[in-house]
Amino acid sequence: MSLYTATYTDLYQLSMAQVYFKKDRHSQQAVFDYYFRKNPFNGGYTIFAGLENVLDSLKEFRFTEEDLDYLKTQNFDASFLEYLKDFRFRGSIFSVLEGDVVFPNQPILRVEASLIEAQLIETFLLNMLNFQSLIATKACRMRYIAKDRTLLDFGLRRAHGPGGYYASRAAFIGGFNGTSNVLAGKNFGLPISGTMAHSFIQSYGDELQAFRDFAEHRPKNCVLLVDTYNTLKSGVPNAITVAKEMEVRGQRLLAIRLDSGDLAYFAKQSRKLLDEAGLDYVQIAASNQLDEYVIKSLQEQQAPIDIYGVGTNLVIGKPDAALGGVYKLAFYDGKPRIKISENIAKITMPHAKQVYRLKNDKGEWVGSDAIGLTSEGSFEVMEHPFEVYKSMRLTGLQREALLQPVMEKGERSFATKTLQEIADYREKRFAQLPTEYKRFNNPHHYKVGISEQLKEERDRLIKLHKSL
Amino acid sequence: MSLYTATYTDLYQLSMAQVYFKKDRHSQQAVFDYYFRKNPFNGGYTIFAGLENVLDSLKEFRFTEEDLDYLKTQNFDASFLEYLKDFRFRGSIFSVLEGDVVFPNQPILRVEASLIEAQLIETFLLNMLNFQSLIATKACRMRYIAKDRTLLDFGLRRAHGPGGYYASRAAFIGGFNGTSNVLAGKNFGLPISGTMAHSFIQSYGDELQAFRDFAEHRPKNCVLLVDTYNTLKSGVPNAITVAKEMEVRGQRLLAIRLDSGDLAYFAKQSRKLLDEAGLDYVQIAASNQLDEYVIKSLQEQQAPIDIYGVGTNLVIGKPDAALGGVYKLAFYDGKPRIKISENIAKITMPHAKQVYRLKNDKGEWVGSDAIGLTSEGSFEVMEHPFEVYKSMRLTGLQREALLQPVMEKGERSFATKTLQEIADYREKRFAQLPTEYKRFNNPHHYKVGISEQLKEERDRLIKLHKSL
Repeated sequence: MSLYTATYTDLYQLSMAQVYFKKDRHSQQAVFDYYFRKNPFNGGYTIFAGLENVLDSLKEFRFTEEDLDYLKTQNFDASFLEYLKDFRFRGSIFSVLEGDVVFPNQPILRVEASLIEAQLIETFLLNMLNFQSLIATKACRMRYIAKDRTLLDFGLRRAHGPGGYYASRAAFIGGFNGTSNVLAGKNFGLPISGTMAHSFIQSYGDELQAFRDFAEHRPKNCVLLVDTYNTLKSGVPNAITVAKEMEVRGQRLLAIRLDSGDLAYFAKQSRKLLDEAGLDYVQIAASNQLDEYVIKSLQEQQAPIDIYGVGTNLVIGKPDAALGGVYKLAFYDGKPRIKISENIAKITMPHAKQVYRLKNDKGEWVGSDAIGLTSEGSFEVMEHPFEVYKSMRLTGLQREALLQPVMEKGERSFATKTLQEIADYREKRFAQLPTEYKRFNNPHHYKVGISEQLKEERDRLIKLHKSL
Repeated sequence: MSLYTATYTDLYQLSMAQVYFKKDRHSQQAVFDYYFRKNPFNGGYTIFAGLENVLDSLKEFRFTEEDLDYLKTQNFDASFLEYLKDFRFRGSIFSVLEGDVVFPNQPILRVEASLIEAQLIETFLLNMLNFQSLIATKACRMRYIAKDRTLLDFGLRRAHGPGGYYASRAAFIGGFNGTSNVLAGKNFGLPISGTMAHSFIQSYGDELQAFRDFAEHRPKNCVLLVDTYNTLKSGVPNAITVAKEMEVRGQRLLAIRLDSGDLAYFAKQSRKLLDEAGLDYVQIAASNQLDEYVIKSLQEQQAPIDIYGVGTNLVIGKPDAALGGVYKLAFYDGKPRIKISENIAKITMPHAKQVYRLKNDKGEWVGSDAIGLTSEGSFEVMEHPFEVYKSMRLTGLQREALLQPVMEKGERSFATKTLQEIADYREKRFAQLPTEYKRFNNPHHYKVGISEQLKEERDRLIKLHKSL
């Protein structure tokens, strides 16, 4: 199910495209970079997600008859609309692999295509990568703090409409174990799970009977919600009764779920009741406005919670709720391009570039990436991108090129990855990030530097524009 | 384009549905309320949006063969899956009209259907209403402060994936004039608009030539982006040159756009340059991380900005980014139902209910709504829902019933409304809300009370459950 069509875009992309077409500037080659300027959540890293969806959608990228009829009503030129009829994306994409750990101000994905191709895909590319990277990062923060506990996405009802569909996917990449989202489970092959709602028990009035009926007909992975009336006096005792009845049938209750009140307190009290009843295998699931900070607090209190169900704060990526990724022109028609800004951090970096992750002789990440021109060979010094007198020698460090060809002339140049493979890659790469970049408060700043040649080129173009 | 299928749901809805089906509890009638507990943005009101999409989707609500094949792999019962094959929503819905102003703890939409029908539609209903109401409210706050200035949605690239599609719709309901989102324009009939990107000018290097080409091929509603290199020394002077050239051709430049720096300062300086050049008709558009507070500040500074382009903060509904609407069982199988909570504000209200907006003898809103049982006649006193000794006499007040039949037995019971009609209704209703509820800081608290009979019923059920 791809929700993307070629009109899933901003009008100005088409306005610009028409001018490019009419002025015969559209087919010259351009280079655009996708990057962001700040990690979300005041964190020390970002998890890159959404790439597979972008590549899938690009293959399908075309204007339908209906699209063109609509554009006709918006004063587009007939010859331009005729051109759009056969429009396909036939450019190349170099990208960090999905699931990798990335940092601000480094190109994460580079598009090399005709100017019109590169321009027309901008909006949907940003829409998809910004959102999924935001959510994968949020999920990864919870995975980091929840250690080996189970993390489940319950957020669909509070998600931004169908954005919830991709939130479930991104959460899995970030380290979640599954989702309640059936459609995402079906289409992305995600493990799905769920418990019961308060309304189920309310519809019975009789909580014990409600539990009995549920256990009878959904005995596998059965989780009973114990806080509809009174958690410790009614919910947990009734769940224990049903767990015992399940034992007689050779079944096992998977868990009880707490959805309100002081979760640490209720988890400890419930654990005690379950253990006293000989039900040490029955797990405790907790939900209710969880995020990485609440989970951290629960873990520090040693709350005996085995399963965290996370909703709103995961799928909306609270509090940031957006990753401000941008897409900037770096090269066109044989010339490097730059955008000047009074804010030096917003000046763009010209030319096609490669990003290198630096490692020591044991292959361990040293906490720095270096950006160089694709046209230059090895460079031995990297400079701070904005501050003077700050540089670092790269002698003796290994370099892993992060931007790999993923699409060449409109065709995927590597096999589709399963979501499990992407999630595994995220886990492996995240394990290589030193811990000081992972903490929530004042994480260490990961260095991203640029080659001397790139710096010289940027300085040259700035001077050129100031002199005009 | 409906993105919703019957599997766009949480797994637990299907788990519960199976138990209802197997225990023959599924066809008894139930009543569910949709409501929320807190206005977003610490505001004094919420704009209700998303209803038309819900009604449209409900008509299409069904399980496909593919859905059922998938559910088979998830251990669902064969007879239940057979039942789902012909499942349709044939219930009734009573709702506040889309675009109306609503408040916490009042039923906004009431579903009366068989238990299984009401349960299976919960997730998508919450997903759609929560998100669109959030965004319509955010948009309305900006409309309120921007007065008669033009407001445009530019947020698609930062939206939550395809959530951006519905964000554009909701923004229009909330008072925006249009969107850059072409797909939303096409499918919802929204006015679309847009300007140009920095990359357009970068691709030329020569800003003046870029402006000339753009004005030549997109002369209608032409907006030139003036901050790529130097706003006042290059961008505005070049725009003036092109505006003068357009005049010779009998055309008019619509606006220039500022996208960085101090918008108040640059707007004032740009206005001066334009006016000095005899271009007082050329408008000024501004964008860059706008929200209602930035717009308020710009208005207070009398920045001569005619068009606000709002992106991220609109479409993600920052800072809240979610409306916590819930869907609670109030009645089932002939009996009122309740959910108890230690937090008294979370105790649900039993029975089918109606909500009345109270007006004085001139038809002006008095700042109070009253909730009564649908089964009771007129009532003369309303009580505070949670606090004792607080009540209000309703004598002499007019009452407008807010929950109207919008779907009866699965069929829409009123004609589809155009988005323009809904936006007009929003404007009309919002105009009736007294100003003290509209301010951003400490808005007046709109009173929502309950009838004595409803209160007695709730108290009775609480006592009943405590005695069990």
